[in-house]
Amino acid sequence: MESLTVGLGARSYAIHVGADLLTALPDWLKALQLPRRVMLVSNQVVAPLYLSTVECCLAAADFQVLSVILPDGEASKNAASLEQIYTSLIRSHCDRQTLLVALGGGVVGDITGFAAATYLRGVPFVQLPTSLLAQVDSSVGGKTAINHPLGKNLIGAFYQPRLVLIDVKTLQTLPARELSAGLAEVIKYGVIADANFFHWLELHSANLRRLEQEFLIEAVLRCCRIKAAVVAEDETEQGQRALLNYGHTFGHAIEQLCGYGQVLHGEAVAMGMLVAARIAERQQLCRMEDVQRIRELIAACGLPLQPPSLSLEACLEVMLRDKKVTAGRLRMVLNEGIGSAKLVEIADPGEVFAVALAPELLHG
Amino acid sequence: MESLTVGLGARSYAIHVGADLLTALPDWLKALQLPRRVMLVSNQVVAPLYLSTVECCLAAADFQVLSVILPDGEASKNAASLEQIYTSLIRSHCDRQTLLVALGGGVVGDITGFAAATYLRGVPFVQLPTSLLAQVDSSVGGKTAINHPLGKNLIGAFYQPRLVLIDVKTLQTLPARELSAGLAEVIKYGVIADANFFHWLELHSANLRRLEQEFLIEAVLRCCRIKAAVVAEDETEQGQRALLNYGHTFGHAIEQLCGYGQVLHGEAVAMGMLVAARIAERQQLCRMEDVQRIRELIAACGLPLQPPSLSLEACLEVMLRDKKVTAGRLRMVLNEGIGSAKLVEIADPGEVFAVALAPELLHG
Repeated sequence: MESLTVGLGARSYAIHVGADLLTALPDWLKALQLPRRVMLVSNQVVAPLYLSTVECCLAAADFQVLSVILPDGEASKNAASLEQIYTSLIRSHCDRQTLLVALGGGVVGDITGFAAATYLRGVPFVQLPTSLLAQVDSSVGGKTAINHPLGKNLIGAFYQPRLVLIDVKTLQTLPARELSAGLAEVIKYGVIADANFFHWLELHSANLRRLEQEFLIEAVLRCCRIKAAVVAEDETEQGQRALLNYGHTFGHAIEQLCGYGQVLHGEAVAMGMLVAARIAERQQLCRMEDVQRIRELIAACGLPLQPPSLSLEACLEVMLRDKKVTAGRLRMVLNEGIGSAKLVEIADPGEVFAVALAPELLHG
Repeated sequence: MESLTVGLGARSYAIHVGADLLTALPDWLKALQLPRRVMLVSNQVVAPLYLSTVECCLAAADFQVLSVILPDGEASKNAASLEQIYTSLIRSHCDRQTLLVALGGGVVGDITGFAAATYLRGVPFVQLPTSLLAQVDSSVGGKTAINHPLGKNLIGAFYQPRLVLIDVKTLQTLPARELSAGLAEVIKYGVIADANFFHWLELHSANLRRLEQEFLIEAVLRCCRIKAAVVAEDETEQGQRALLNYGHTFGHAIEQLCGYGQVLHGEAVAMGMLVAARIAERQQLCRMEDVQRIRELIAACGLPLQPPSLSLEACLEVMLRDKKVTAGRLRMVLNEGIGSAKLVEIADPGEVFAVALAPELLHG
């Protein structure tokens, strides 16, 4: 097992990465003196795989265990799922001495975190991420949210977990398509922050896709270290943290216009990264060779390169609603070569995106 | 104008109390370098009285002003009103550089604060409380919330405003019944924290009910000072802040069982305070003479003394869902004489409340 800390003063917490960690949960909760009453939140796909394991080990360690099972998928990241958690908590008379535990992917983690942030004005919570995307991204850093019918993640809070326990063995049951989607976020860290890691991924994407354990642990650790450093510097996204949104400006537009859940978040991010890299190249922030390497790594990870045919106007409309928009100006993260990135204001989004999308449309 | 500060480190903010302060808002916002885009949130009763005044002075000072008007009353402190604010913000493409301003009573302030806490994971907000209850209690301290069909204030966040501007002139348009309801919270501060203030209230309750300006400013200031000191010590209600819930344990049960809005919050708190004082007397924390003084001041403020006929079982059921319940044990705030209070665990709530309520039932 490897460990790191997200350094946020009184709100600091540990991330442990390894194999067979789920059953270590009770010991960690005791060590942190967290409440002995636990509400596990999972979904209809993950619960049959892992819920009873977690329930049993908690019960055996004298925890009082409740659970709520949400529908699966991005489409369920909404007010109705949140309400399902609230109602379970209230009907079970859960007070502030209740721990929420998210057992699942990014959707479960984000909703559970937001429920924890807002139930009785805040109860503690722990992340047990079971998808690669959640392990390298959404479970770390305290961004919690639900989607709004008019946009993704528009309602949420910054609210840190008390502990993140990452069991890479849970990736054995992850569909290949979702593993690839998670790899998009892994690639992102290389592009924006670590050229060596990007190169390591070029060498080892096949090992990761074959779920070789030591490679998975290494990749997850390196991603979490990068993310933890960024979050420690800028918890509430006033500056540097926005760089983690590389690929997300256009990615969110794709996700929303296709309907949440039709295109996976990571797939949308992969397409968004390629669009961002093309814009970066046109703005002379990187070379065509860098774009090509990004394109090839995305393909090697089994991710789609080509956005669906969408109206550019509709994409722009969604992008201008993005949280990264400030005073009506669209800003997006562009890579500088590979291993660095910066936030750039896009003066004429219509023209910039029309050009960046053109090659894909030609391939289409 | 009088001022004080709620000392919370980087989240500290000023409270200004005076007459004709609404039109000073633009200057304060500029001094604090808050966003120039403002979404005013008010309700159907307050908006016709003060919204255009605030809108005009902001527009004249080059602020971009939007507004949303909620239904009036505690019954509207729900997810639907919250959604109304979210939708207005999203449809107007409001980004994080948007200031929410609550113009109204406690309901408007609590909903607006919660919307600010959760829209795009947090935007700044300012309180312009127009009811006495909001001026002395809910606008200060960062407790934001909405009600849930199963209980009051169950969903919310601790989220501090950037500024509280209290214009006591707005109390001129407050219905007498609501002024009295606000006085219940004023009395509360005397009972739990300041015997001199309690005595001042015994002398001047009539001046307050006649809306004499210097008395209103003095009362609001003294309440805000007490609350600011408590909040600075214990922002998230781990200990001392719970004392501010004096009268609220039973009060919340009355409010909920009568239906939100049928009994005003302050009226319910008044009845809850009298029940708490009776329990305190039985537990030898205060004398019968103290109970009598509390009873008389409540009556002098035009507040009801007698709870409606409700089933004790139903009251207990609601009280056991209260946020102040820890690990299933009912705790409530009891006064020690007048001017001090403490949190006490109630071993046998059924018996304690049956006895405390008996005198009222006899009077009924």
